[in-house]
Amino acid sequence: MAERKLYPSLYRLRASHQLPASFYVVGAGRTALTDDEFRKRVETAVLSSEKNADPTQLSLFLSSFYYRSLRYDDPTDYKNLSDALDPLDRTHGTQGNRAFFLSVPPSLYAKVIAEIGRAGLAREQVDGGGWSRVIIEKPFGRDLTTALHLSREIRKTFNEDQIYRVDHYLGKETVQNILVLRFANILFEPLWNRNFIDHIQITVAEDIGIGHRAGYYEEAGCLRDMFQNHLLQLLCVTAMEPPASFHANRVRDEASKVLRAARPIASNRADSLCVRGQYRGYLQEPGVASESRTETFVAMKVLIDNWRWQGVPFYLRSGKRLPSRRTEVIVRFKHVPHSLFQPLQPTDLTPNTLVLRIQPEENLSLSFETKHPGPKLCMSSVEMDFDYTQSFGRPPEAYERLFLDAMAGDQTLFIRSDWINLAWSWLTPVLNHWTEGHPLPYDAGSWGPDAADDLLSRDGRSWTNGG
Amino acid sequence: MAERKLYPSLYRLRASHQLPASFYVVGAGRTALTDDEFRKRVETAVLSSEKNADPTQLSLFLSSFYYRSLRYDDPTDYKNLSDALDPLDRTHGTQGNRAFFLSVPPSLYAKVIAEIGRAGLAREQVDGGGWSRVIIEKPFGRDLTTALHLSREIRKTFNEDQIYRVDHYLGKETVQNILVLRFANILFEPLWNRNFIDHIQITVAEDIGIGHRAGYYEEAGCLRDMFQNHLLQLLCVTAMEPPASFHANRVRDEASKVLRAARPIASNRADSLCVRGQYRGYLQEPGVASESRTETFVAMKVLIDNWRWQGVPFYLRSGKRLPSRRTEVIVRFKHVPHSLFQPLQPTDLTPNTLVLRIQPEENLSLSFETKHPGPKLCMSSVEMDFDYTQSFGRPPEAYERLFLDAMAGDQTLFIRSDWINLAWSWLTPVLNHWTEGHPLPYDAGSWGPDAADDLLSRDGRSWTNGG
Repeated sequence: MAERKLYPSLYRLRASHQLPASFYVVGAGRTALTDDEFRKRVETAVLSSEKNADPTQLSLFLSSFYYRSLRYDDPTDYKNLSDALDPLDRTHGTQGNRAFFLSVPPSLYAKVIAEIGRAGLAREQVDGGGWSRVIIEKPFGRDLTTALHLSREIRKTFNEDQIYRVDHYLGKETVQNILVLRFANILFEPLWNRNFIDHIQITVAEDIGIGHRAGYYEEAGCLRDMFQNHLLQLLCVTAMEPPASFHANRVRDEASKVLRAARPIASNRADSLCVRGQYRGYLQEPGVASESRTETFVAMKVLIDNWRWQGVPFYLRSGKRLPSRRTEVIVRFKHVPHSLFQPLQPTDLTPNTLVLRIQPEENLSLSFETKHPGPKLCMSSVEMDFDYTQSFGRPPEAYERLFLDAMAGDQTLFIRSDWINLAWSWLTPVLNHWTEGHPLPYDAGSWGPDAADDLLSRDGRSWTNGG
Repeated sequence: MAERKLYPSLYRLRASHQLPASFYVVGAGRTALTDDEFRKRVETAVLSSEKNADPTQLSLFLSSFYYRSLRYDDPTDYKNLSDALDPLDRTHGTQGNRAFFLSVPPSLYAKVIAEIGRAGLAREQVDGGGWSRVIIEKPFGRDLTTALHLSREIRKTFNEDQIYRVDHYLGKETVQNILVLRFANILFEPLWNRNFIDHIQITVAEDIGIGHRAGYYEEAGCLRDMFQNHLLQLLCVTAMEPPASFHANRVRDEASKVLRAARPIASNRADSLCVRGQYRGYLQEPGVASESRTETFVAMKVLIDNWRWQGVPFYLRSGKRLPSRRTEVIVRFKHVPHSLFQPLQPTDLTPNTLVLRIQPEENLSLSFETKHPGPKLCMSSVEMDFDYTQSFGRPPEAYERLFLDAMAGDQTLFIRSDWINLAWSWLTPVLNHWTEGHPLPYDAGSWGPDAADDLLSRDGRSWTNGG
């Protein structure tokens, strides 16, 4: 991740004058590199993404990069790193503020963090200067037990308010914009409930397969790779009650409340609420076990047992080798209660739909019935659109936002440990259920197994698969 | 009107196969014309509007046109006309169904209609075949007394369900679409009330002056010319309760209810609720009296005393020599009740606005707050748009729709006499008040007298004048 995303994101922040002048980076890893060799690597990474980077600006940027070799399990190396940071803090005027970005395999999180602590690097100064923060990325465990264990281990060194767990979906403009749309406009909130919404669909689709990531993917599967994090985060952002403020813990309180209200999936209901699939050809991918039952597709019907959402299903799906790469939240409103326009019945009028597209385009569209011009009163469903890129240009990388927030100490877009535990806890019956049986096969380029369609058609609904 | 709008509209209806095959037109007027001379006139009118009319189609169309000379006050001529219609009914298979379109000065309405009746032409066949309808255009009186008188005179000959009073605004796609938008979508109706709407602005602006119409305009003025009809119709369409059906009388019941609930304007309040203006230079227009106090601009604050609209002002304005030709309804929603996004206060967030543009473009746009991309949580107000012309091509002339409806016996888009009486009755105190004093002068190309701005600024609001 570091080379492909981190360095270019930092560079863009610097180029757009969003990074503080008092800033430096120390790379630390097993490979022995000089500062200059490291800077060359960073330069290459930046240039591969920012081809027109200004040479003067880039050279200034690179001069803030340093390297120390570090064996992850050697306390002496951490001590040396700590000793190296103190003079750099003074040189760059960073006042002892340090963020540790762990670009290591998750299995090393606990070990590396423990060593950071042992070297005294996690200690914060009581006078407010000199914070210490750790930034880690998913997966945060692979089930409730391992997540609780990891959390306990990290908490031996860092407090919750020092831990920045990245779900890069939360750094995306359109995801944040769901909150702005809902709560900075008076239009949507009065409609955003069981009285007016029929159901909500959340799709995170990829057209690619697993590529060369069988090692990781065989262990994870779609539920752990995409569902437990991105889809449930999108669910929470879409379904949450209005927080009293945009303060990190107030927003995350509301996200956790959604998961707490999600109706538990009893084992005997798992098959009727959850669908797992595996694309045909998966077993032939390099590195995949010949009898693998790793799922590459998951669809679920989620019910939220609270006042707002009672009776409004959330249909979630994610998978690989689907027809297109697409992330979107579709809010399908109810039919009008009564049709003035006889002989048309309410069900003859296309219900309103709000589509929040997150990738590949970032846009939103609202469909509504309008009069089709002409003498007879006939109607068409048309769309109003808003495209972020057209209006605002290229949205910043999710990581740009997340790095800045981590440095500013704003945890709003980072995941709190209680949320992770709730997510794993809620999914445990599904994980248990799926230790037996096999995923359903589906053709590459299809929208998953037929059972995913049945999930909605049983309720008299269907997936919106777009054009 | 007939030559410029009627004939081309009829031709387009024929060309688009919307006219029944059993159809003919008899022109009748003081001028002596042969059928061929009349057809030549019609042809010229059609070709001036439809330059690419298909010659075969046009020639077929023209073959259904006839002419009889008629002195408006001569019973014999009406008798002759009646005698001429019977064989034409048979030739064209129209089954005795007749619509009389009165393209005469309003002062002749009563006389012509009485003669139509005396010749037996208003009688309808009890067996359902052979209806008789009369189509007339504004003005329908010039105050309550004259309107009641005209109505009584017409009703001596025609029943209310035979009378089609045209307000061509109601034939416009976008005006009809306000009803479709409100009642064929679940989105708008829950928001369409005092809980969510701050106020509504209705503007019917013309950039031209009175041209060569001083004779008419000096008698009318803006209140009678535009306000009593178009603006109050737009008000009713925007404010009405949902009718149980789109049946003509159910819709018109609701329109009348709006006027009945409009708060009466006490004489001592007229100056604070109503503004009249006269553009500088009006007195120099040809045909205008040197001391004329005819108003060319009216702005009013209207309050609707019912459950839905209590406390929501409707600001209406219309005038000549304003900066642009524009008709639009602007629905300004309230501020959000609470801002999550401190330090921004609710009033720092731009309130949502729905703009229904009726001319010159027919479109609608919805503004909403969105996140401005970038690391800091800052917002912009952006717009989603829908353009009728882009999506559906040129909208049909209002008259095309109205003629078809009149032939089909659908009075939904025609004005009922009770509505006219209510409109005049509500405006009587203003008319009385304005017999004294003078309109306020305003510069051509401005948005009317300053007092029109004060009307809103007193309430802490302002007109939306667009770009």
